Amino acid sequence: MSPERFEADYLIETPVDPRRAAEVMAGEQSSGTFVSVPGETPELKARAAARIEALTELEAVDEPSLPGAIRPVGQGYRRARVTLSWPIANIGPSLPNLMATVAGNLSELQQFSGLRVLDVRLPAAFAAAYPGPKFGISGTRSLTGVMDRPLIGTIIKPSVGFSPEETAATVQVLAEAGIDFIKDDELQADGPACPFEDRVRAVMRVINAHADRTGKKVMFAFNLTDEVDAMRAKHDFVLAQGGTSVMASLNSVGLAGMIALGRHTQLPIHAHRNGWGYLSRAPLLGWSYIAWHKFWRLAGADHMHCNGLQNKFSESDDSVIASAKGCLTPLFDEKPCLTMPVFSSGQTAHQPAETFRRLGSMDLIYAAGGGILAHPDGPAAGVTSLREAWAAAMAGIPATEYAKTHPALKRALDPR
Amino acid sequence: MSPERFEADYLIETPVDPRRAAEVMAGEQSSGTFVSVPGETPELKARAAARIEALTELEAVDEPSLPGAIRPVGQGYRRARVTLSWPIANIGPSLPNLMATVAGNLSELQQFSGLRVLDVRLPAAFAAAYPGPKFGISGTRSLTGVMDRPLIGTIIKPSVGFSPEETAATVQVLAEAGIDFIKDDELQADGPACPFEDRVRAVMRVINAHADRTGKKVMFAFNLTDEVDAMRAKHDFVLAQGGTSVMASLNSVGLAGMIALGRHTQLPIHAHRNGWGYLSRAPLLGWSYIAWHKFWRLAGADHMHCNGLQNKFSESDDSVIASAKGCLTPLFDEKPCLTMPVFSSGQTAHQPAETFRRLGSMDLIYAAGGGILAHPDGPAAGVTSLREAWAAAMAGIPATEYAKTHPALKRALDPR
Repeated sequence: MSPERFEADYLIETPVDPRRAAEVMAGEQSSGTFVSVPGETPELKARAAARIEALTELEAVDEPSLPGAIRPVGQGYRRARVTLSWPIANIGPSLPNLMATVAGNLSELQQFSGLRVLDVRLPAAFAAAYPGPKFGISGTRSLTGVMDRPLIGTIIKPSVGFSPEETAATVQVLAEAGIDFIKDDELQADGPACPFEDRVRAVMRVINAHADRTGKKVMFAFNLTDEVDAMRAKHDFVLAQGGTSVMASLNSVGLAGMIALGRHTQLPIHAHRNGWGYLSRAPLLGWSYIAWHKFWRLAGADHMHCNGLQNKFSESDDSVIASAKGCLTPLFDEKPCLTMPVFSSGQTAHQPAETFRRLGSMDLIYAAGGGILAHPDGPAAGVTSLREAWAAAMAGIPATEYAKTHPALKRALDPR
Repeated sequence: MSPERFEADYLIETPVDPRRAAEVMAGEQSSGTFVSVPGETPELKARAAARIEALTELEAVDEPSLPGAIRPVGQGYRRARVTLSWPIANIGPSLPNLMATVAGNLSELQQFSGLRVLDVRLPAAFAAAYPGPKFGISGTRSLTGVMDRPLIGTIIKPSVGFSPEETAATVQVLAEAGIDFIKDDELQADGPACPFEDRVRAVMRVINAHADRTGKKVMFAFNLTDEVDAMRAKHDFVLAQGGTSVMASLNSVGLAGMIALGRHTQLPIHAHRNGWGYLSRAPLLGWSYIAWHKFWRLAGADHMHCNGLQNKFSESDDSVIASAKGCLTPLFDEKPCLTMPVFSSGQTAHQPAETFRRLGSMDLIYAAGGGILAHPDGPAAGVTSLREAWAAAMAGIPATEYAKTHPALKRALDPR
């Protein structure tokens, strides 16, 4: 790939010839327009036009995946995989403008009954322009002291409704249970029922006292989703209270908000992808996580949500593993920007074996709710059972076998 | 509606009983969870839980609109319209956290084979917390001096590839043609091939000189899409050069970015919705414009893109008119937050009659590309023909009739 160009891959479905459809994509997203205009000279096209780098035709289908396309010319709706490239001189290494370029008006075009962004590849200029994750996997491990296994995490539940003091009391229970990581639910932000600063103060009092007593500092990701200047101020408050992580909802703050936080932060950013469903669930529309998550990693996300195997959502296990592997794949040779994938949603002692087998890594946060709090012997046994399930997985020992000598795991797998 | 609660309407499609599905929505997005936890007391639910305010069952379908749902229990996939409400105490009047609450994890749930946000209704606390459009319709009219008809606008084409001087030369032609409004294409931002400040300087030299000579100041919306602090600086630069508008791509900057710009701005913000296709084109997923556009209006959007009748995109005319009417409908009694709808995409002298008939308003920006530059008698005749088409539309005179005494319109309608 040229260091002067960036690329994007798409899955398209089109009622016209796929080559012609790809030309429309390239034109619409660079120097072309529907009526030819005087200024569009061959020289201008040479310096500014998008190029079709590859096109592989796939199957055709009889029914369009999305409404609004023109009628097919005869061969149904033809699918293809297309790669376009653009000169970086068009936009410079700018993530917000990259987003408008690779995914702007494209999916509204009548020439498509389906269009999904599959991947983007960026030249080194982007690596130089953005911070990327300042902590990532190694920084998160240093701050938590957890070096040789996944971080065991959980989410404060009920999601909303707790006062700061009730939140802190739950944190106390979880800290005593041996938890490594806790996050606010994405619904818990800074409402009058549980103000941010009061919550941080109450929770950090518990966490700091526990750390003084035991030497183990629980990482708590405080949800500071808000306006930009408020997020910076909230970050500073968490830092001042001795906190070690902040959380932001990516689709709520947006890319400019996340970049501002990424540049400002002195703490790992736990990036929550709520809203991901509306960006991804129609198979021939929106974004693959592989493409989408790169924007946020480069902007500074240290932890990124990937769902989990056998989750309570609609995502398949294959998709979960592909997303998590994406997080663990370097973005650039000189600046890998590795981010820690977060497994959550219905995670228990049952999934670590397959998760480790398929992911091939222990570099993740394994977050469970019921898997901890609903353990018949209490939260400490819940946390222990998850650690044991991971120890078994990493040792290649079946969980049921390992459970014979590990009662917490045994009770988690078979609570009767 | 209670001043202490906010509401959202949804179109859902579900394999389970719609009432049960609505309960899952309310639980997932407030105090509920999949495993019951100790802290979820009746008192906590009373203060924090979402409520089902209305549920109207619609048709059932045999095939799911989206993959990933659980199998239906027997009656196929049942559609319904659902209204939920939440206590504002959960999040306070915060737009970013509102987005996570009304649209966060919902569309990923297995209980749904379709889920679309149709509308949101906000209590007055939100009106007090955000600036809304600082200029809107009246401010835009004051700055342009266009009082009694739509603004006639256009977009610099080719979208990218022009140098600052070439851009300014095009602006010169358009200003002399009598244009009211010009915008950068959303692909033109701040790349090394056309740096922002150089472009602003070159364009404003032309616009200011034209204003000095004629008394008419063309409004140019400079695309400042970027990081937050850079957008503020670019705004200040445009202001200092005598510019009268800035443009931002909403899905590129995101909500926190737009709020920051909305609070900072002393110029009308031209809000570009590129990317809207991936948020809306699957009928049972994503957002209706009616719900989505309210976030950006409240954040400060003065102009909002709505597509146009018989556009080159996949959107239907009914949807275009509904969106534009949304922009012209007050958000709050005391703070209407009216925003000027922008009609564009394939607009010519042919559509004003139906646009005016269906919209019932002249408060819009009518942007045309080929409709101006491709007029057989040149750009001035192009602009004149569009003004004439609107004059005819507003007078209730058929364009072909009006054209008999208006040669520019005549040639636009029949260029032979």
